[in-house]
Amino acid sequence: MKLPKKTVQRLSRYRRLLYKYRYLSEPYIYSHDLARLLNLNPVQVRRDLMLIGSAGNHRKGYNVNELNNLIGEIIDSEGLQKVAIVGAGRLGQAIMNYVADQEMNLKVAAVFDIDTHKIGKKFSDVECYDISKVTEVVPQKGITIGIIAVPSEFATSIADILLGSGVEGILNFSSVHLDLPKSIYLKEFDIITTLEEMAYFVKNK
Amino acid sequence: MKLPKKTVQRLSRYRRLLYKYRYLSEPYIYSHDLARLLNLNPVQVRRDLMLIGSAGNHRKGYNVNELNNLIGEIIDSEGLQKVAIVGAGRLGQAIMNYVADQEMNLKVAAVFDIDTHKIGKKFSDVECYDISKVTEVVPQKGITIGIIAVPSEFATSIADILLGSGVEGILNFSSVHLDLPKSIYLKEFDIITTLEEMAYFVKNK
Repeated sequence: MKLPKKTVQRLSRYRRLLYKYRYLSEPYIYSHDLARLLNLNPVQVRRDLMLIGSAGNHRKGYNVNELNNLIGEIIDSEGLQKVAIVGAGRLGQAIMNYVADQEMNLKVAAVFDIDTHKIGKKFSDVECYDISKVTEVVPQKGITIGIIAVPSEFATSIADILLGSGVEGILNFSSVHLDLPKSIYLKEFDIITTLEEMAYFVKNK
Repeated sequence: MKLPKKTVQRLSRYRRLLYKYRYLSEPYIYSHDLARLLNLNPVQVRRDLMLIGSAGNHRKGYNVNELNNLIGEIIDSEGLQKVAIVGAGRLGQAIMNYVADQEMNLKVAAVFDIDTHKIGKKFSDVECYDISKVTEVVPQKGITIGIIAVPSEFATSIADILLGSGVEGILNFSSVHLDLPKSIYLKEFDIITTLEEMAYFVKNK
């Protein structure tokens, strides 16, 4: 099933919410509660769940565990998707923490840095390798997604290294726009530029 | 001058790059070099700089310091824009570091947390306050932008508290979509949802 991007994003959110309700004695939830808890429109929620083949019980709502599993079948890969983080600074560590705290089918399988004090250490149980090992470790561990959490001046060369290692998706936290082949699934979170943009528009309101 | 969002984003990037070249003995840069270093189209760069009234020297290119100042006049507020970060965990600290490392007209003026071990301490020289102090500290320090770096379950109530304190912009790092009044400039970076979306599309390529 090839779903629209926005639908996949919402399914991911539903699942994280449902997961918290899995041990309730009456594990049912209404679409309007799901909608309210996630700040979405109930019609939208029902449409999404219909799309993946879940109609819900008219009286009791949706069975939390069934829905959880169904979403999992649709959005998870078989086995874990493995992620590499380049940059073991605060941001890289924050992302590792985020991923480790969530029940999700993603795992940080390696982290890379240039700092010799970090190489060989473990962060959230994940080994830190020298940056020169990317092209070796990424294919060896079957990593498909690379996260760039290094200072902006290194972002372009890190992206080249990641591409050369065979990753299929890149999440870029630096302030440099990456110009990658269309075959690479690219997402960019540029914190500083976003803050400057916000400051400008807040000032010019 | 009310510029388009994308233009402001690019101006912010030009400036950060130019800043690094300010001490060169010949502080001139060509638009095609600016473009190459930022992965942009040179025509785009020239159009942006023309828009803010900088034509550049045909032979030598643009004067780095002049351009730097000009961009500053346009995108900076008078005085610093002040930012509050709610959540002094790894992510909140990473953002603080990012902002402190950049030469920009933004300053983190306060950080808030619920952890009594953190309250009263300083992070990157910024004092950490109890979350209950938001509505007092934000107006007192003239903070205009709030960054939400707390676990998702608290995001909605933190957003309400920030709104009540008078901020005009919110940058939301949680996985909960915020439904805010149109008068608030909202940007959302949802790391976990983005990773799940990437995993889905990488799998289904």
